[in-house]
Amino acid sequence: MIADGSPITERLLEQAAALTPRVVEWRRDLHRHPELGWTEFRTSALIADELERFGFAVRVGREAVVPEARLGLPAADVLEAAWRRAQDEGASAARLEAMRGGLTGVVARLEGGAPGPTIGFRFDIDALPILEASDEGHRPARDGFVSAHPGVMHACGHDGHAALGLGLAAAIAALRERWPGALVLVFQPSEEGGRGALPMVEAGAVDDCEALVCCHLGAQSRITGHVVGGVSGFLATTKIDAVFKGAESHAALEPEVGRNALLGAATAALHAIARHSEGSSRINVGVLEAGTGRNVTPGTARMQLEVRGENDRVLAFVERRARAILEAAAAMHELQLQVEVAGRAPSAASDTAVIERVREVARHVPEVVRYDHTVMVKASDDAAALMQRVQQRGGSATYFIIGSELAAGHHMPHFDIDDRALGIGVKMLALIAWSLASRPLRRARPAEAAD
Amino acid sequence: MIADGSPITERLLEQAAALTPRVVEWRRDLHRHPELGWTEFRTSALIADELERFGFAVRVGREAVVPEARLGLPAADVLEAAWRRAQDEGASAARLEAMRGGLTGVVARLEGGAPGPTIGFRFDIDALPILEASDEGHRPARDGFVSAHPGVMHACGHDGHAALGLGLAAAIAALRERWPGALVLVFQPSEEGGRGALPMVEAGAVDDCEALVCCHLGAQSRITGHVVGGVSGFLATTKIDAVFKGAESHAALEPEVGRNALLGAATAALHAIARHSEGSSRINVGVLEAGTGRNVTPGTARMQLEVRGENDRVLAFVERRARAILEAAAAMHELQLQVEVAGRAPSAASDTAVIERVREVARHVPEVVRYDHTVMVKASDDAAALMQRVQQRGGSATYFIIGSELAAGHHMPHFDIDDRALGIGVKMLALIAWSLASRPLRRARPAEAAD
Amino acid sequence: MIADGSPITERLLEQAAALTPRVVEWRRDLHRHPELGWTEFRTSALIADELERFGFAVRVGREAVVPEARLGLPAADVLEAAWRRAQDEGASAARLEAMRGGLTGVVARLEGGAPGPTIGFRFDIDALPILEASDEGHRPARDGFVSAHPGVMHACGHDGHAALGLGLAAAIAALRERWPGALVLVFQPSEEGGRGALPMVEAGAVDDCEALVCCHLGAQSRITGHVVGGVSGFLATTKIDAVFKGAESHAALEPEVGRNALLGAATAALHAIARHSEGSSRINVGVLEAGTGRNVTPGTARMQLEVRGENDRVLAFVERRARAILEAAAAMHELQLQVEVAGRAPSAASDTAVIERVREVARHVPEVVRYDHTVMVKASDDAAALMQRVQQRGGSATYFIIGSELAAGHHMPHFDIDDRALGIGVKMLALIAWSLASRPLRRARPAEAAD
Amino acid sequence: MIADGSPITERLLEQAAALTPRVVEWRRDLHRHPELGWTEFRTSALIADELERFGFAVRVGREAVVPEARLGLPAADVLEAAWRRAQDEGASAARLEAMRGGLTGVVARLEGGAPGPTIGFRFDIDALPILEASDEGHRPARDGFVSAHPGVMHACGHDGHAALGLGLAAAIAALRERWPGALVLVFQPSEEGGRGALPMVEAGAVDDCEALVCCHLGAQSRITGHVVGGVSGFLATTKIDAVFKGAESHAALEPEVGRNALLGAATAALHAIARHSEGSSRINVGVLEAGTGRNVTPGTARMQLEVRGENDRVLAFVERRARAILEAAAAMHELQLQVEVAGRAPSAASDTAVIERVREVARHVPEVVRYDHTVMVKASDDAAALMQRVQQRGGSATYFIIGSELAAGHHMPHFDIDDRALGIGVKMLALIAWSLASRPLRRARPAEAAD
Repeated sequence: MIADGSPITERLLEQAAALTPRVVEWRRDLHRHPELGWTEFRTSALIADELERFGFAVRVGREAVVPEARLGLPAADVLEAAWRRAQDEGASAARLEAMRGGLTGVVARLEGGAPGPTIGFRFDIDALPILEASDEGHRPARDGFVSAHPGVMHACGHDGHAALGLGLAAAIAALRERWPGALVLVFQPSEEGGRGALPMVEAGAVDDCEALVCCHLGAQSRITGHVVGGVSGFLATTKIDAVFKGAESHAALEPEVGRNALLGAATAALHAIARHSEGSSRINVGVLEAGTGRNVTPGTARMQLEVRGENDRVLAFVERRARAILEAAAAMHELQLQVEVAGRAPSAASDTAVIERVREVARHVPEVVRYDHTVMVKASDDAAALMQRVQQRGGSATYFIIGSELAAGHHMPHFDIDDRALGIGVKMLALIAWSLASRPLRRARPAEAAD
Repeated sequence: MIADGSPITERLLEQAAALTPRVVEWRRDLHRHPELGWTEFRTSALIADELERFGFAVRVGREAVVPEARLGLPAADVLEAAWRRAQDEGASAARLEAMRGGLTGVVARLEGGAPGPTIGFRFDIDALPILEASDEGHRPARDGFVSAHPGVMHACGHDGHAALGLGLAAAIAALRERWPGALVLVFQPSEEGGRGALPMVEAGAVDDCEALVCCHLGAQSRITGHVVGGVSGFLATTKIDAVFKGAESHAALEPEVGRNALLGAATAALHAIARHSEGSSRINVGVLEAGTGRNVTPGTARMQLEVRGENDRVLAFVERRARAILEAAAAMHELQLQVEVAGRAPSAASDTAVIERVREVARHVPEVVRYDHTVMVKASDDAAALMQRVQQRGGSATYFIIGSELAAGHHMPHFDIDDRALGIGVKMLALIAWSLASRPLRRARPAEAAD
Repeated sequence: MIADGSPITERLLEQAAALTPRVVEWRRDLHRHPELGWTEFRTSALIADELERFGFAVRVGREAVVPEARLGLPAADVLEAAWRRAQDEGASAARLEAMRGGLTGVVARLEGGAPGPTIGFRFDIDALPILEASDEGHRPARDGFVSAHPGVMHACGHDGHAALGLGLAAAIAALRERWPGALVLVFQPSEEGGRGALPMVEAGAVDDCEALVCCHLGAQSRITGHVVGGVSGFLATTKIDAVFKGAESHAALEPEVGRNALLGAATAALHAIARHSEGSSRINVGVLEAGTGRNVTPGTARMQLEVRGENDRVLAFVERRARAILEAAAAMHELQLQVEVAGRAPSAASDTAVIERVREVARHVPEVVRYDHTVMVKASDDAAALMQRVQQRGGSATYFIIGSELAAGHHMPHFDIDDRALGIGVKMLALIAWSLASRPLRRARPAEAAD
Repeated sequence: MIADGSPITERLLEQAAALTPRVVEWRRDLHRHPELGWTEFRTSALIADELERFGFAVRVGREAVVPEARLGLPAADVLEAAWRRAQDEGASAARLEAMRGGLTGVVARLEGGAPGPTIGFRFDIDALPILEASDEGHRPARDGFVSAHPGVMHACGHDGHAALGLGLAAAIAALRERWPGALVLVFQPSEEGGRGALPMVEAGAVDDCEALVCCHLGAQSRITGHVVGGVSGFLATTKIDAVFKGAESHAALEPEVGRNALLGAATAALHAIARHSEGSSRINVGVLEAGTGRNVTPGTARMQLEVRGENDRVLAFVERRARAILEAAAAMHELQLQVEVAGRAPSAASDTAVIERVREVARHVPEVVRYDHTVMVKASDDAAALMQRVQQRGGSATYFIIGSELAAGHHMPHFDIDDRALGIGVKMLALIAWSLASRPLRRARPAEAAD
């Protein structure tokens, strides 16, 4: 147990408080330069540079992500254009070289001066394809840190997450000599769509972590000063792109010659997949685009869909059924079908042992006004893939919530986070790191197994 | 051209008039003892006996139908029960033996005393699964010839067709010595559902006919005294029975275990088969039965469907698409599918050469008050299979309409035909036979090819 | 807490043991004379007669069920035929008179000689439309108590439930003078399909019960000697009969004239109702029958379906959506729609206070070899309607499981229960009654509210 | 009958031959400046200027089209941009002013010096949203008249039609003094999608025409020198834009909150509209676009569809059913539906009387190497609306085909017509005009009524 007023705890709290303006600054810089999944070139270069300056050993490019494991990669020309923009915006050439073609993300390691466990933290860094609000009522616009990349926006708080990670790094680096064990920081690309975690798992990013801590600003808590120790209910998910290809024909002169891709897509009765006795499932076809002209039998239909399940068995069931339905719908209309996995995340549960540490620590952060053990979140985050890896190797993990007042909901053009939440976040993260490093968890199985 | 007042014409008209009461009697006897497709045991035996008496060479059983070519055969126990009923009703044992197991139908041949062509006539003989009306307003009930087989009824006039065939046989038999060429009479079982013609085609029933004449009472003409020389538009058709087999499960406890046969059937978007540029098509799922209990995932679904097309290419297209859709619908819900052809008929058009003879003959039958060349009938009759065979071998054919007032529409419980139409029918048939026998057609291709 | 070896406990255990052969006999008599929902005429008369003999005040007919609240009533002629059969089988005329037309079910009350609470027990009594196995391997057939009503069978154990209720009545009646408070026994008709509980709720059957105990033989436990104190997860449910009426037409001659009821039914995409964030839902179309002939556009389609939800809000959502979908599907194909509620049950949870009593009591029944607190049952039982009423009025309730080896699963033709489970059941019920009567529960809200 | 070698016939043939280079030039100018439907500003101004020069009385703007009757109008900014481009390309300001906002199209009239009938000709003038090929193999690219408007192309030959109309005008103008009766030339905008004919019908463009002649280059005949006198089979058609509006929701967190517009659109089983006994029908959903993100319940779906029918009754049936299905599909998923007619054309048949004149004339054009009476075209052209108006007022009409070798099919990026076909076209048109003017048709009902 952390003694109230232990020197290190006090020191870390002071450190975090002193670093907060810098964290706010980082966050604003990142907010102004948002980058979509697999194009976080400037973001990754900036992070890598800063961490190296703090004394971390930094891995980027193929050392941070396994290229073949990346999902939902943009087209080559999109990657290249974003890469050149990062160049133009001053990212260091050496860093960029390693990331060319969408090898973004950073894994950093700090070896402490004392023996101890390896503790990991994960921060996601990608932005969203949303046009940020530009009115005076929107603080980022008013204060000059609105997105400089039209149509791209940090509307989910990942800019804040990355900045918190840098703040944590700076705070611990100052104590390096006395730090027990090692600190691993994972700055993950492409969280949106569940595309970036698996390539980092494959790269072994968290393989030796005894504990892994993930966090999110806002989310289920919109009260600054509210902290939730963990989440339950994370749904395993697979994101799928399906393309039906048939044949166009003049719809009046030769209706029988066409092979109707739109009919194929409309026939794919994905929502009729049976409910599962083991728990929740979800299916959504979020986007469908088909056809080229009113009087032409549609020859192509493009579908973006996702399936989710309460656990891996439920997901496997829903995904198997979805694939069978897509294939049969294509066969029904004599179409060719291309199915590609565009993203993937397992289910994962927070371990009570780590949640308990969050709870203890929260008592020492004066700005924390409310604490809850867990919240049920029937959604998905590919942090779960990193958590699951740690748990499968005998470690523990949590995904905790740093409450924040929000100017508008996540994924909205007026989204903005509360600077005070960044301050609380740095303190929480630094104290959690110390708690786990100074008083290692017993290696244990997850309290609530993510099956 | 038939000379007005030729002795034979006059003789045949007298003969036909004299036979009419007998024809009415035959029709009433058959009406009272209706038999469903492939169970026309008593009917066939009666016809065979009468024809033999008139001097015809009679073929029944395997000589009349190729067993393997029969479609839509009832279950063995149903066949056996109907066969025993025919025994009980006094059909001759010798005849019955040859027909056991559903080998019904009769082909009869009369060789005339003079050289001439072989002319065929086709009559269908099966009844329908309809419960006949029993009220006093219904003449068959009032006059004592209502169906003695509950749930089975001659509601399409095939009793009349069979009686007309016997009347024709009797009329010609009387002139046998002077008759030029041969007369072939085909009494076809199982017209309903298109099940009986192909096995007779396979048995060679009409292979040497230079002309084939088919007819229908009522149908497109409900005026007694109206005659239509031929039909156009007959749709080629295939009748299909499809059974989807999945797996039942408790719909609440284990929804994911079930494989839902009803969903499979409902998913078979047969009506979405594209229109065809070459002409009309039709698709109908007439019957669907699925499931055993409200709270059980349906494990079985049984579907009776039919497809039709303006010509054989259109039918082939629709049938191919229907099969693909059924298979894909089964695959979509992980079901097994059994598809069986339960009936089949091609398209066929009436030949102008034969229609012309009907027109000529109609002028000599005083009761004929109106004549039309052809009528468009966008429906199907497997007479087309026999017509097509004759046409393919260089002969000519027609399907002509003998108008009749009807007490109610075809396939209705109060259906009844007009006795006067039977009288007109015998006269028309006898004169058509004479016209074709005495003045052979030139061998020609069909006027309007059934493609 | 019940003292080990208290005189009453011992006395009740002896009593129950002595009554077991009689319970087995009752069960066999009922097994031999199974009656479907709303036709339990002989069953209700027998139960009423026996209870009256034990000194219970008995309510039948309109005093036991509110006629207008009955759901899923069979046709009048079916009710009448079953009623006459009960007459023929010797049910007392006086009893039968009150039940004519489907007013089955019995509510009985015994006032004890001492002051105390009112405790209720509920037993369901209807059979299933299943043809019972008749082979020698099937004990009821071998031992002469197989169903005498072909196609009707006690395949869910309700015969055992009713016999247990009679055994409980007999056991308590013997202690009447000393019994604290009152005992209410509810013998509920039409549990299958959720049709019988609401009319008894409406009749006030359990209105003054401070506790209500429901039970099931077998179910989630197939081990004789296993007892489960309560269930969670009961799904609220609504059973719906939907009839689509369109217009028939000849599918080839006039396809545009038909209004296709089968297409309407197939279009009702009930399975596409969205998942609900608050919990499980279920939808099943268990039976669909449509059409009269292959070449006729189907004019009528009859659908039996059910919807379920984890709580009343989820059910309300699914039911609202199902009705909207049915109506829209009818409108899409220009059909008339009749929708009728054929059954209904709410959700309900077992109260910990009562479960605890089951646990305590189980320790005193020597044959109980295993005990579990609760089992999750994602299915429905309209006992929940009676439980919910008691809970809403401040009382407590449970639904507990009396494990039984089964010859085959519930609803199977070889289903049979273990006589020993009947013995254990009587003991459990008698001791639970004593526990609740002698040591009343504090009025409390349900442990886990069924929302 | 036109006497061989009549002076006028000879004169017209010479005139036409002399004009052909000018026609080719006009066509190339128009080909280089293609304009989409309702933006034919430069095209209309050019035509109006030329016709005025030839002495025609010219109507443009509100005098040529009734603004309210226009269908499928582009957005205001699109109209304005196109209008400004026409300005930039030098179209006369006075002409343009009358057409601002999409009032394109020209009606011109020449009064001859002699008494006679009023004869009308119709030419369509709009281009298609197709990117023209730019390779050297494409003659327009090689010879410098490829489209100067990227993404817009005369890929259907309407540039040729407009040029033929100008050629015809020039040829007749030269004979004005001797010309019997009046000549009306209709240059119709927005033929593609059936949007431009009705507003001209409403404006009375052809109200006093005793005969109307429409034509198409290429189409069913790709042989230069082939002429077909008329078409049969034109399908009546309605073009519909449907927008389904629901509500977005997070597909995992709140699936029940969304109202799924994509499911609504997919549920609209338009292809299941029954076949019609009176003739062909067509249904095509050519374009569907729905949804904004993979994990968001789609809130909007936009559908472009069309229905067609062999006659107005069949179209009315299919259109009524389509609207009912769209509405029911929206209701099924609790969506709002906007349905807008984006185009419309009736059926119409060519009159034998006019076809006969085409046949006669074709004999006098030496380059005509093959003639056919009619061709069946199961497609739509809104020329039918103008033809129908003339026919309804007792006049006659035809739609004839001027065969042309084509470099690629209609609507393809390499489409190009044969200059020789333009020469033949001018000759045919001039002689047809003379035939109809000099020898008026008897006012008659159409040979084959377009019902």
